[in-house]
Amino acid sequence: MLKYVEIAEKIEQYIIDKDLKQGTKLPKFNDLIKQYGVSKSTIVNALNILEKSGIIYQIQGSGIFVRRNQRIGYVNLIENQGFTTDLDEFVITSKVLLLEKIIPSEEVRSNLECSKDELVYHVKRLRYINEQILCVEESYYNSTIVPYLNEEIAKESIFNYLKAALRLSVGFSDKYLHVIKLSEQDSQILELKKEDPALLTEELFYLSSGTPFDFSRTIYHYEHSQFFAQSNSLNI
Amino acid sequence: MLKYVEIAEKIEQYIIDKDLKQGTKLPKFNDLIKQYGVSKSTIVNALNILEKSGIIYQIQGSGIFVRRNQRIGYVNLIENQGFTTDLDEFVITSKVLLLEKIIPSEEVRSNLECSKDELVYHVKRLRYINEQILCVEESYYNSTIVPYLNEEIAKESIFNYLKAALRLSVGFSDKYLHVIKLSEQDSQILELKKEDPALLTEELFYLSSGTPFDFSRTIYHYEHSQFFAQSNSLNI
Repeated sequence: MLKYVEIAEKIEQYIIDKDLKQGTKLPKFNDLIKQYGVSKSTIVNALNILEKSGIIYQIQGSGIFVRRNQRIGYVNLIENQGFTTDLDEFVITSKVLLLEKIIPSEEVRSNLECSKDELVYHVKRLRYINEQILCVEESYYNSTIVPYLNEEIAKESIFNYLKAALRLSVGFSDKYLHVIKLSEQDSQILELKKEDPALLTEELFYLSSGTPFDFSRTIYHYEHSQFFAQSNSLNI
Repeated sequence: MLKYVEIAEKIEQYIIDKDLKQGTKLPKFNDLIKQYGVSKSTIVNALNILEKSGIIYQIQGSGIFVRRNQRIGYVNLIENQGFTTDLDEFVITSKVLLLEKIIPSEEVRSNLECSKDELVYHVKRLRYINEQILCVEESYYNSTIVPYLNEEIAKESIFNYLKAALRLSVGFSDKYLHVIKLSEQDSQILELKKEDPALLTEELFYLSSGTPFDFSRTIYHYEHSQFFAQSNSLNI
């Protein structure tokens, strides 16, 4: 693990252990250097990653402060490590409705930047939060990047498998959100009524190298889902 | 303007002028130092702000690449400079439904961290995108921070007024999103039907100093709104 990531994790753990509230001032920059016995640039990088992750905010000339949202059970729209990380105080389970290797449609090809010859995994899962239906998710994985998937893996966190077993480095993602009325078919899957409201998201996940590997379309149960987006100061 | 913000803006302008596509490699780090005639740390800071803003991505040992989403007309859930910035290729107008100075309710007090003695501005606006209804927005501004507002200001971008006239530095924000069925009253305002779907957002905006100053509740017209969230690599 990179040194600054290790230090960032330690600082985050300190905030959690001490249960520090939003706005609490953290030790001064120079004190952090001494406390962790690392270089100036390691602390700069650690603080940057913590700021990006919405865990702290920095005020020039004033200090470093704890940033914490108080509401729990919200799906984070900005982190992209899968629900299993977002909602780790909840039990997330999945029922695999479909798992097949197919020739990608034009839409999937254009998103995953692949050709007709490159097969993709098509996985459709019903996902539960504390045994209630959270969403129905339809994902396409580029099989040149994800060469193997099975139902056992898909029942658990596919992202954990990609990271732990395939050693893939998940980078960034783009998400597009629309509010829709449910179709007959989707309403049956979600055990709702036709024309009930829903959030539809389309997400494209990239490896750290910038290669897209997962295109997903997810429809959320409006009574069992809520979302959270933290924005940082972007003085540009 | 800070030097690194100026350089970040120049690099962004370069990407726009050249119409560079996602994945295009930018000049090397050392070449950027020479090209802009600035210090190493200025380039580091400029690249960090561009990465945070989702304009580039950096791959250690490999280079700096353009990041660009292709879809236009989406409300950015992460930037927090108001619609007027998000949707600057569209015409955003507002109709002020209500503007009053009131004693804050308990909910508003707890969000804005103020007391009963501190009056708040309560502004309700119907907002239009290209003359179509985009959303109805109900905002509460702490009057110790925003001491003056009137209908003329509220008809335009309140955030532009806060930044330009009041010289406030808008920092970060927390947004909570829920999908709901419209009430009779809200459906009439949005010119939709009762129980039609809608996105409800609750947002709390902070100054760069960490003080909350604006608590807003917004209900979006599901046929005229769509949302975008970019997530960065958070390898923590």
